[in-house]
Amino acid sequence: MEIFKAQSVNFDKNVRESFEKQTFLKLLGAKLIKITPGEVEIEILNNKKLYQQDGYFHAGVTSTIADVSMGYAALSLATDNSKVLTTEFKINLLNPAIGDKLIARSEVVQFGKFLKICKASVFSISNKNEEKLCAISTGTMFIT
Amino acid sequence: MEIFKAQSVNFDKNVRESFEKQTFLKLLGAKLIKITPGEVEIEILNNKKLYQQDGYFHAGVTSTIADVSMGYAALSLATDNSKVLTTEFKINLLNPAIGDKLIARSEVVQFGKFLKICKASVFSISNKNEEKLCAISTGTMFIT
Amino acid sequence: MEIFKAQSVNFDKNVRESFEKQTFLKLLGAKLIKITPGEVEIEILNNKKLYQQDGYFHAGVTSTIADVSMGYAALSLATDNSKVLTTEFKINLLNPAIGDKLIARSEVVQFGKFLKICKASVFSISNKNEEKLCAISTGTMFIT
Amino acid sequence: MEIFKAQSVNFDKNVRESFEKQTFLKLLGAKLIKITPGEVEIEILNNKKLYQQDGYFHAGVTSTIADVSMGYAALSLATDNSKVLTTEFKINLLNPAIGDKLIARSEVVQFGKFLKICKASVFSISNKNEEKLCAISTGTMFIT
Repeated sequence: MEIFKAQSVNFDKNVRESFEKQTFLKLLGAKLIKITPGEVEIEILNNKKLYQQDGYFHAGVTSTIADVSMGYAALSLATDNSKVLTTEFKINLLNPAIGDKLIARSEVVQFGKFLKICKASVFSISNKNEEKLCAISTGTMFIT
Repeated sequence: MEIFKAQSVNFDKNVRESFEKQTFLKLLGAKLIKITPGEVEIEILNNKKLYQQDGYFHAGVTSTIADVSMGYAALSLATDNSKVLTTEFKINLLNPAIGDKLIARSEVVQFGKFLKICKASVFSISNKNEEKLCAISTGTMFIT
Repeated sequence: MEIFKAQSVNFDKNVRESFEKQTFLKLLGAKLIKITPGEVEIEILNNKKLYQQDGYFHAGVTSTIADVSMGYAALSLATDNSKVLTTEFKINLLNPAIGDKLIARSEVVQFGKFLKICKASVFSISNKNEEKLCAISTGTMFIT
Repeated sequence: MEIFKAQSVNFDKNVRESFEKQTFLKLLGAKLIKITPGEVEIEILNNKKLYQQDGYFHAGVTSTIADVSMGYAALSLATDNSKVLTTEFKINLLNPAIGDKLIARSEVVQFGKFLKICKASVFSISNKNEEKLCAISTGTMFIT
């Protein structure tokens, strides 16, 4: 994995401020739990409002935190006053997303001139704090 | 586009019953607006709780209705008592998802023995009822 | 489907000249069989050198003509002296690629400022001239 | 990364025998350079017949070895007499594929009952033996 250097000393603040503006993330109860240059983690606690038909976290929830964490991994490497947009992502859902919480861990794979390629893994965390890989994703972010 | 025939006369009921069990879709305010064999449409009305940082529908919302509509397009062709799971999907986000509502339109491309390949288009609908393509997606569904 | 207008009267020549430079396409025996603004078709005749382990066209062959046809669909809408690069594509392989030839049909879905989103379908053509859908793909092209 | 155990003592032979049947891989000059349970590497030497329009390895070549290495990573964990088919893959192309050779490194992420999810990285190797990441891919394999 490549080691990236932040272009702004405010990278943590930049990510948090953008995150706070996302009402949908509030609705999901998503929280930023790690921000380092090129790496972001987001957590969602189990909540009966986030289920699909079998009582698992909905794939839309898993996808959302995979996408958002990739976007902010990219934004953490951008200059101040940048904005991030997802242009595409793909997700493979491996295991049912159940347990006490979900954590999405993302990192930048390539911080190109125009496009920032990221990857994410989403884990379910049991009440015994055991992690299980639920999903893997890759995405392309555009920073303006 | 291939014309598919439902395997069950209850296809409409089967889809609706599964849809109703998804608490996350209730949270989003998603509604089934069309169910025919191999084709499903889902709608979400604009709601300030569903936004990303710029006041557009969140990509997670767009992705969720793309995914769900593909899953139910597949389920509409399955036998009674079937369940549907998404194994993977990819989405390209083309335009900001703004307007009065979003509509995801999905269809089955191939209903294979094990895997059902689907595609979806998500449109934003303005207050003048003009449609704009926001996203395209392809996915693989697994029916058990 | 959106109707696109070419930015250059030389769109056909531009695509053909770029195509001719691709030695790999010569190795595959790929031919351009249609170029209209925003739409391109590429054909490959059956050839025992292009097989996977079961005697079908290799997925790499299917993927190559899907990708190349998407790239040239994008290039057909660009100004003179443009170059096209694929940034990402995803392909779902639906049916064995067998028969007398393969044809990839691509079109531009969105010709954005930076990114051009395209989709492709690859068909196998039997000796009775019957078409069967083998693969669907979506991709993001970058024009410089 | 999960550590997988081969189900067959013949895993190396099984992969090599299937590989040898692929005429397209012979045409490309692809070679198996590593087979361990759940991990496979494939190499292609630079060859002017494999180029796109700018003199780089064609994206179709990069995609082919990404796909094939994922397929054989999955097959290396299967029982004797199994066959592997790709159902879908997505690839992000990060950097021009230039240099003395390309190497695709793949591993199984999940060896499910029906579907085997794999990921691949493709590197270009310079004449000074320096590696550069060219592409990342994820795919779904089906073992029969």
